[in-house]
Amino acid sequence: MSEQEGITIKKAENFSEWYYEVLQKAELVDIRFNVKGFDVYMPTAVKVLREMEKLFIDELESRAHMPVMFPIIIPESNLKKEEEHIKGFSVEAFWITHAGKSKLDERLALRPTSETAMYPLYSLWLRSHTQLPMKFYQQGRVWRYETKMTRPLIRPREFKWFEAHCAQASEKEALKQVAEDTEIFEKVVRDYFSIPFIHLQKPSWDKFAGGENTFAFETVLPDGKILQIGTTHYLGQKFSKAFDVKYTDKDGKKKYVYQTCFGPGVSRILGAMVSIHGDDKGLIVPPTVAPVQIVIIPVFTKDTEVVVMKKAGELLGSLAEKGFRVDLDDRTQFRPGFKFHEAELKGVPIRIEIGPRDVEKGEVTIVRRDFLERISIPQEKVEEQVLEIMDSIGAQLLKRANIHLKIQDAKSIDEIRKKLKDGGFIRIDFCMNEKCDDELKIKTGTEVRGTLFGKKEKVGTKCAICGTKAKEKAYIGISY
Amino acid sequence: MSEQEGITIKKAENFSEWYYEVLQKAELVDIRFNVKGFDVYMPTAVKVLREMEKLFIDELESRAHMPVMFPIIIPESNLKKEEEHIKGFSVEAFWITHAGKSKLDERLALRPTSETAMYPLYSLWLRSHTQLPMKFYQQGRVWRYETKMTRPLIRPREFKWFEAHCAQASEKEALKQVAEDTEIFEKVVRDYFSIPFIHLQKPSWDKFAGGENTFAFETVLPDGKILQIGTTHYLGQKFSKAFDVKYTDKDGKKKYVYQTCFGPGVSRILGAMVSIHGDDKGLIVPPTVAPVQIVIIPVFTKDTEVVVMKKAGELLGSLAEKGFRVDLDDRTQFRPGFKFHEAELKGVPIRIEIGPRDVEKGEVTIVRRDFLERISIPQEKVEEQVLEIMDSIGAQLLKRANIHLKIQDAKSIDEIRKKLKDGGFIRIDFCMNEKCDDELKIKTGTEVRGTLFGKKEKVGTKCAICGTKAKEKAYIGISY
Repeated sequence: MSEQEGITIKKAENFSEWYYEVLQKAELVDIRFNVKGFDVYMPTAVKVLREMEKLFIDELESRAHMPVMFPIIIPESNLKKEEEHIKGFSVEAFWITHAGKSKLDERLALRPTSETAMYPLYSLWLRSHTQLPMKFYQQGRVWRYETKMTRPLIRPREFKWFEAHCAQASEKEALKQVAEDTEIFEKVVRDYFSIPFIHLQKPSWDKFAGGENTFAFETVLPDGKILQIGTTHYLGQKFSKAFDVKYTDKDGKKKYVYQTCFGPGVSRILGAMVSIHGDDKGLIVPPTVAPVQIVIIPVFTKDTEVVVMKKAGELLGSLAEKGFRVDLDDRTQFRPGFKFHEAELKGVPIRIEIGPRDVEKGEVTIVRRDFLERISIPQEKVEEQVLEIMDSIGAQLLKRANIHLKIQDAKSIDEIRKKLKDGGFIRIDFCMNEKCDDELKIKTGTEVRGTLFGKKEKVGTKCAICGTKAKEKAYIGISY
Repeated sequence: MSEQEGITIKKAENFSEWYYEVLQKAELVDIRFNVKGFDVYMPTAVKVLREMEKLFIDELESRAHMPVMFPIIIPESNLKKEEEHIKGFSVEAFWITHAGKSKLDERLALRPTSETAMYPLYSLWLRSHTQLPMKFYQQGRVWRYETKMTRPLIRPREFKWFEAHCAQASEKEALKQVAEDTEIFEKVVRDYFSIPFIHLQKPSWDKFAGGENTFAFETVLPDGKILQIGTTHYLGQKFSKAFDVKYTDKDGKKKYVYQTCFGPGVSRILGAMVSIHGDDKGLIVPPTVAPVQIVIIPVFTKDTEVVVMKKAGELLGSLAEKGFRVDLDDRTQFRPGFKFHEAELKGVPIRIEIGPRDVEKGEVTIVRRDFLERISIPQEKVEEQVLEIMDSIGAQLLKRANIHLKIQDAKSIDEIRKKLKDGGFIRIDFCMNEKCDDELKIKTGTEVRGTLFGKKEKVGTKCAICGTKAKEKAYIGISY
């Protein structure tokens, strides 16, 4: 809390240590809670997440998703109703066995995901075809007993997400929902958060337990590794049959619904945002989600205090009135240099400095966080300029981030190995057999992430691994 | 979901059944989740809670409370560090003993409250007196294995709340924080939510486990029973000594902090809001927290559709622009009568009806939810009138609610029994011995709720129960 020294590690030299340093010094995450994989979210993280979640909520609700809040626990018998599902999650669940001094009659899982909590209620709620599509979502936390190495935000055992669960009348309607989820993800994550990604269909051996197909949004972190930041699962009728989710159709017949679930992983998205946008000075928060978009820092001596503070106060008022999230840093115990530094560390997109000379000239000094470029502009142009700079920061962050999202083609194990050092995705002709994925893992450390969603790519003749007939262009890479 | 028939039970005749009917039909809570005490919050509840929580967050953060988010689990050894505390909560905790197929080395409790999760980190964060007061809060859920009969929102096993944990340099500073918590609670719960309460200091045998003193906000539901809707605990140095939360003072010496924690119970507050404000038509949501403050319902025939919808659209635009949360109910599958009814059921504070005759006269019809009074007003006065009506609804709801918050004096067990049928609080001269509280419970079913906070009341000579010397005016009542 009181440690305000800057970032000491260069991002390009040691990304992993830089990440931990930014998490701590920008007051994002404290990793010292005494249970592995469970972290404390500090004020900066809570506030940024709040803005991120607002944007997801707006997009979900404007598309008729209704919010619900389910309990965080799921009885074991619910999980067992879909056998494939429990098999998939039984190694990952935390189990409650006792309450007070009593042993429970039935074990309760901390939800690893909520299908089996929600669908018994869907079965009660759904009656008629007029209710379709039925669209509910919830915002909250889930828990998974990760056996891989944990990492704050990116691979914790407790993480925040949204899950939107929809029921539709047909596979076609369900696939429309997949398209809508994609639209939401693109708008929120790429347009608002400036995080680029590609959208893949996962191979059959890597899909959601109990589902028919999984579609994943995957981005690349600065160390070249691939991070999945959201998914949509097409569940078909597997869960609706297991949980008896059916409706009376126009023809009077009872029919099982087709289902989808959409899960943007907000903890991971925040982790990606920190990793991708940050620099050697600290965090950079896109203006769309910055809790403070503009910080005004007055610079004065005893003689000029009154005139500078008056101007700063006026500016605060006029920017706040225009709807900007703006703060006047009027703390007297810190010098301006400290405040500049802190605003950079915490990633405030725009800093406005006002000193006596600025007041005299009727100007202010604006410093944008991405380039740390200083410009002087006339006071009457501040609102207009600030808006332009914010848009420009969003666009610049996306442009920079796109550098990491490399896609290179390769035709053999050797070529994969060679191109691997650049990071990102490698695209290969692929036979779609799991055996070749195993071989890839052993020989290159990469794995098949999937095939491009929504676009059939032209494929070569031979699988880059085994040489048999290639079926798809597959995207491979090293996973987080 | 599809059941849209109205409330069938009269609130005055059977409050308890009326409560369950409103919860279901206004889409607040579904009680059919298959674990006792764990309920599903439906869209109306989630949206109202969101508005309620925003107001708490604003008040907390404007008073320099910083948000954090701690894990929901607490290792048993943390709980054990404060022996009184674990004794108090061990009968109430849900215990996680396994993860995947492994037995955990140490049991993890679902947090019943977060002192023992947070204070080990406070010990790391706090260094210097310059950091005091240190004020963090979190928003989230807690879990308690209630052995009493559960009731949705009011006594569930999973509930939402805020907890604000503060560290101060002295008892005096800590008690200032208690006063600030009171200020927040009065502003949010009484002024914004129109829920009246009294503020009591709990008797020593009913205080928070491990704390020095508990101060509680208590309201009265329409059935006359007392519901505690928030508390501040003064912890003294008990936890700071157990968790080593200390700082270096100006004199260079290490000192333990004094602590307070403030817990507004938002699930319970919502339960109280539903119970106290609702009527035989359904829910009534105060305008300050209504997700939709104004619903515009157009009434037209084929011939008049265009002109009515045009006017309705204009009104929607102008009200939205002024910052009102306003909705135009343009669903074509439902008749206006159905929409009026639904808006009443869900407690929308203001309904605006526009029909062809209104358009002709340049008027609209406004119906306020509390009195269901209809008035016609000129279109150009809508914004101004709506604002006035909202304020008036808030004031009227509080006025009505105050009727339940009865306080009657009694001098003997017999008198208590007689006055008990009116519900609310009964005030007695009291010796402050737990034995007399036990006797009260057995003979009257009431219990001592506490003594008035912040005001020493004049007390009579003899305890109303045992006849020995009275020490305080005590407030008693039947508890929820």
